[in-house]
Amino acid sequence: MSHGAEDRLAVDAGLRARARRVIPGGLYGHQNVAPLPRGYPQFMSRGLGSHVWDVDGNEYIDLMCSYGPVLLGHRHPRVDAAAAAQAAAGDCQNGPSARIVELAEALTATVDHADWAIFSKNGTDATTQCVTIARAATGKRKILVAEGAYHGAAPWCTPGPAGVVAEDRAHLIQFRYNDLASVEAALDEAGDDVAGIVVSPIRHDVNRDLELPAPSFAAGVRAACDRAGAVLILDDVRCGLRLHHGSSWEPLEISPDLSAWSKAIANGYALGAVLGTSALADAARSIFTTGSFWFAAVSMAASLATLEVLAEEDTVGRTVKMGTMLRAGLADQASARGIGVSLSGPVQMPFLTFAGDDDFALANVFARRAILEGVYLHPRHNWFVSGAMDEADVDQVLRVTDGAFDDVARAAAGR
Amino acid sequence: MSHGAEDRLAVDAGLRARARRVIPGGLYGHQNVAPLPRGYPQFMSRGLGSHVWDVDGNEYIDLMCSYGPVLLGHRHPRVDAAAAAQAAAGDCQNGPSARIVELAEALTATVDHADWAIFSKNGTDATTQCVTIARAATGKRKILVAEGAYHGAAPWCTPGPAGVVAEDRAHLIQFRYNDLASVEAALDEAGDDVAGIVVSPIRHDVNRDLELPAPSFAAGVRAACDRAGAVLILDDVRCGLRLHHGSSWEPLEISPDLSAWSKAIANGYALGAVLGTSALADAARSIFTTGSFWFAAVSMAASLATLEVLAEEDTVGRTVKMGTMLRAGLADQASARGIGVSLSGPVQMPFLTFAGDDDFALANVFARRAILEGVYLHPRHNWFVSGAMDEADVDQVLRVTDGAFDDVARAAAGR
Repeated sequence: MSHGAEDRLAVDAGLRARARRVIPGGLYGHQNVAPLPRGYPQFMSRGLGSHVWDVDGNEYIDLMCSYGPVLLGHRHPRVDAAAAAQAAAGDCQNGPSARIVELAEALTATVDHADWAIFSKNGTDATTQCVTIARAATGKRKILVAEGAYHGAAPWCTPGPAGVVAEDRAHLIQFRYNDLASVEAALDEAGDDVAGIVVSPIRHDVNRDLELPAPSFAAGVRAACDRAGAVLILDDVRCGLRLHHGSSWEPLEISPDLSAWSKAIANGYALGAVLGTSALADAARSIFTTGSFWFAAVSMAASLATLEVLAEEDTVGRTVKMGTMLRAGLADQASARGIGVSLSGPVQMPFLTFAGDDDFALANVFARRAILEGVYLHPRHNWFVSGAMDEADVDQVLRVTDGAFDDVARAAAGR
Repeated sequence: MSHGAEDRLAVDAGLRARARRVIPGGLYGHQNVAPLPRGYPQFMSRGLGSHVWDVDGNEYIDLMCSYGPVLLGHRHPRVDAAAAAQAAAGDCQNGPSARIVELAEALTATVDHADWAIFSKNGTDATTQCVTIARAATGKRKILVAEGAYHGAAPWCTPGPAGVVAEDRAHLIQFRYNDLASVEAALDEAGDDVAGIVVSPIRHDVNRDLELPAPSFAAGVRAACDRAGAVLILDDVRCGLRLHHGSSWEPLEISPDLSAWSKAIANGYALGAVLGTSALADAARSIFTTGSFWFAAVSMAASLATLEVLAEEDTVGRTVKMGTMLRAGLADQASARGIGVSLSGPVQMPFLTFAGDDDFALANVFARRAILEGVYLHPRHNWFVSGAMDEADVDQVLRVTDGAFDDVARAAAGR
């Protein structure tokens, strides 16, 4: 059933056919490529540094980093060695290993607002724990969340409505990101029943340009929480350790009370974490939250090694440098063709959209050319620059995007 | 601060002191040993087969199996080799590996009722997905659960009330395990709004004897679901693959519509799964549920190897044989001293309680002697027999429990 360029995905096609028989819809969740243009492989085989390979052996420069978990590059030797050494002793045991103490010490030393840490497996585990801790601490119920923000995929926060009941969101009140007046209005609505405000360090809603926080917004949310006696919860799951070697609002000098972490903190190993202030330690202790694999040692060993690398190498600086080169190159290429683009987000979490491209048709043209020529990026979700990406990678990405912009120009002209 | 026998836990004590500074209460969740008698190590170092070692180097025969995940024994060579081979290629990537298809095929071939599979990281992920799928499929809201049953630690199901709001459980209706009349009463209460019934294959509530399902109860719950148009959800997270090489109610010839799995399915690697019937595939496809690490390949490779071992070796038969020896030995030792005990549960998930021991004081005396003499069991939670346990292990356990029963006899006499 494959045609032309899709012969390159013959193994992938065979696996997709098998998958449709044993997995509903063939796949689920954020790694389902069904909404992506034709040409994306569904199944991946391996990764190394800044490069990844699909099951047909096609090689790509990776601009998705597994949707965020890979920060230092795929199969980072130091992280993988630490994980393998731990695996040779034990992973999931009758109790945690010493790694849990070392990691809690390392994270509280790295993140300014953090006096303690608890660990889990998913970002959703961590955001849900934050909400539960805020309610336990305050004895209040209302949680303020930004319209369109993604805080995980449990019934209280999943963007999909199927199977969710109204009560799952009974105590959520929405505000608009970067709009302090809307935060005040939400607080008014909550009255004396507000437990906390959940906010991402940047606005990274799917299908739209990323938006940095106005410093006055971050400061205003902090002040609003202080006035209302509410817990400020920073959802650092996607951004954590990519923007700053610490909590992502530290450069703004804004300290949350709780922060939720996952994705990059163990460079691809499954780990979630909540970090909090000493004022919330009793509340954290009071909730019952656990999981069969939450105390497993391998991902904690990987996280310790990741933090060590980040402390020794300026990964944020390096990804900013590569991200800046990439953004400048993309901007030049678009400008040279008179193509209107938006290049949003921190440069190491870049996102490209096209002016007037509400249905993402031009983004899909761009992404399709990129994937066919060996660059794995995404038309609707921000990208990620890993610490393994070098100038040669950026040059090669830009050679490919040069052609992709040509395709976009042709598609736009044909409209 | 350690005394006498606790000198053996000097490294552990040092780690506990450090942990109290950076982890609320020193630890959280089911692996917190604070409620256990003095003598239990909090921190573990390694495992091999049926034996585990704490951070002070003390060795134990393991009767907890990491609270369930370890089925074939710690660091099973074939499982670990499969995991390491996969890790050398890739784990968390931009898409799943071929392992997800192979594993969905293997599980649907192994479990009678299963036509499809989806994967996650926690047992709570799986039970929550089951509830969401049942609601999506039926358009109804009420979920029936057994009083005292444990189905995970999300706000809708956690046994701890802190931070939970009434709405989290707004549509839960309780019945009593093995009491069909209570199921009918719950269905009456739900009226025409029932989405599903969640039930464990055996009753394994904490702090009480385990209870096998009456075959008429299992059949009655199935019939009640059919009459009410409700989804029968079997929570096989704790029992799955320990009682039967397939769904745990297959020996009763009762098929659920959905089943939740985790713990033992990858012999200690972090994995959750929902298996379902083709009638529910569209509903499963309709919900949005995902996680950063849900598509990671290593735990799936480990699960495939686990299923291969289970298909080739009669692990259930072996653990039943060892569990039967253990139970007979414990019964003889108690009987010889005139100590009233209850030995409940399937023999490979054994549990021992003492008559009239409502505060678990005698259970604690028993457990303390066991842990000090190198047998890791639990005074309030069922134990687990792994496939790595042999007759020499059982003999050694019984030598230790012989002394533990002496201690119990003395403690009971002193009451």
